[in-house]
Amino acid sequence: MFRNILPKQYSFYNFFEQHTLVTKETCRELIAITSQGGDIASHVQRIKELEHQADEITHRCIEALHKTFITPIERTDIHYLIKRLDDIVDFIDSAVIRLGLYDITIIRPETREIADVLMRAVCEIELALKGLRNLKDVKLVNEKCINIHTLESEGDDLMRSALSRLFKEGDALLIIKWKEIFERLEKAVDRCEDVANIIEGVVLASS
Amino acid sequence: MFRNILPKQYSFYNFFEQHTLVTKETCRELIAITSQGGDIASHVQRIKELEHQADEITHRCIEALHKTFITPIERTDIHYLIKRLDDIVDFIDSAVIRLGLYDITIIRPETREIADVLMRAVCEIELALKGLRNLKDVKLVNEKCINIHTLESEGDDLMRSALSRLFKEGDALLIIKWKEIFERLEKAVDRCEDVANIIEGVVLASS
Amino acid sequence: MFRNILPKQYSFYNFFEQHTLVTKETCRELIAITSQGGDIASHVQRIKELEHQADEITHRCIEALHKTFITPIERTDIHYLIKRLDDIVDFIDSAVIRLGLYDITIIRPETREIADVLMRAVCEIELALKGLRNLKDVKLVNEKCINIHTLESEGDDLMRSALSRLFKEGDALLIIKWKEIFERLEKAVDRCEDVANIIEGVVLASS
Repeated sequence: MFRNILPKQYSFYNFFEQHTLVTKETCRELIAITSQGGDIASHVQRIKELEHQADEITHRCIEALHKTFITPIERTDIHYLIKRLDDIVDFIDSAVIRLGLYDITIIRPETREIADVLMRAVCEIELALKGLRNLKDVKLVNEKCINIHTLESEGDDLMRSALSRLFKEGDALLIIKWKEIFERLEKAVDRCEDVANIIEGVVLASS
Repeated sequence: MFRNILPKQYSFYNFFEQHTLVTKETCRELIAITSQGGDIASHVQRIKELEHQADEITHRCIEALHKTFITPIERTDIHYLIKRLDDIVDFIDSAVIRLGLYDITIIRPETREIADVLMRAVCEIELALKGLRNLKDVKLVNEKCINIHTLESEGDDLMRSALSRLFKEGDALLIIKWKEIFERLEKAVDRCEDVANIIEGVVLASS
Repeated sequence: MFRNILPKQYSFYNFFEQHTLVTKETCRELIAITSQGGDIASHVQRIKELEHQADEITHRCIEALHKTFITPIERTDIHYLIKRLDDIVDFIDSAVIRLGLYDITIIRPETREIADVLMRAVCEIELALKGLRNLKDVKLVNEKCINIHTLESEGDDLMRSALSRLFKEGDALLIIKWKEIFERLEKAVDRCEDVANIIEGVVLASS
């Protein structure tokens, strides 16, 4: 198997950064869905486009990985990192698709709070990845990762009270629909924590 | 650890081919369930037997993997390939088990369409694996893999309209039951795409 | 990367044994929930504490793995083993959390039977791990692993009749709530079988 002779050390960080930009834009669209009585369908459509862009970046990153011999961090870490980043967008996409599929027109208020947590977690990921690129900044990276763990735990609490309120209303159909949506958003938040775990592992391995 | 001295290069393809035959037979039984008002229970029972056969092939493949030193393609690819093939059968089995578990006697019509997509995807897998065995035929392999991606996307659309129609009927119990069944069939189709991804990776690595 | 020079061969088994003790204690609390009309909330709380302890042991095990150069069994096997053990506790925790979340005060009787299967499977894991530590005892290890497979199959049957009875009652809300709980307990049992599979793989590789 032929691999590039010149190690393109920084290109993987470029992929991560490109992906994070798309992921942030996806969170922004999710927040737009939750904040205005406006055109939900067009934001859902926009998220689908972003999901394709994120896929494309992930695909190119993995392709580059196959062609590069020397990588700045472990190959498997690069692979997991970009896949987990991609899962965040996938789960948001798969959550909002259900708005149309289930004819949902009223967005439950907790969706907004969870969207905010997601956006904040992705911003922390962005900063942690910047710190990772410049490994002198171990302290900043770890700080950001701890923030992501805290946000995941906040997301958990939000999810629980969202589900609790949903079940108290006792409408089985509404429960089935929104449980699916909330669960997908929860998984998106979980993937942020997975990214943090990978980043922490990389820092640990290189210290 | 003692490994075989003579590399049994082709035996892994034999495992894949044996497994694909069982997987095709499983799809045929699934189609039988959806096409006749006849004896659902006996087809479900037959699928359970096929699932055991598939398990057995998977088990023997992984055992052979442990005993073989030189493999025709990457060890992890062989491992993932046979596992993903096996997941297809497992998900079909776990879908149809629910027919009995939930006392379902009327098969929703979309089940047939999804079963057809599954069968076509498995036939493409069969051809792609044949092409992979004879690596001169990269073009054919890639063609078959693209077909599988297209089928997965068709399956996705089918699934969405199946769910949409299900929810519109508004029967919570029926929704719970069929959502489970459709989700498992969807995962079976997804695993076909996973197989295509692995095959594409193998082709990429050896070109 | 600097790794310890002295191989701490036995410490990984210590982690496994510590974790198994916590897992058994978790099963005991689960049984307590199902057996008395008493204070469910306090047992749920206790399980949450045990889940944190298990997490801590898992974390320390993986940290030790990063620092140790020579491991008594394959690195990936150690990693999977401790993660799968940890999943058992996580799934039990995530099952019982739902008792509070969904305001459940009446525990369905099948929960007790499943809890018993779980406890028995974890006890078999404990013995299999002891046998694994002392590799002369291959026969005992395999025996214990076979018992775990049998228990998983028993758990499967229990789960099926639990779901069947649940659906026959036809209360959609109750179905949604308990299906979630039962599914998580089922996954806990499945993880016991994953542990057995890993142990069998280790025995196979060293024979």
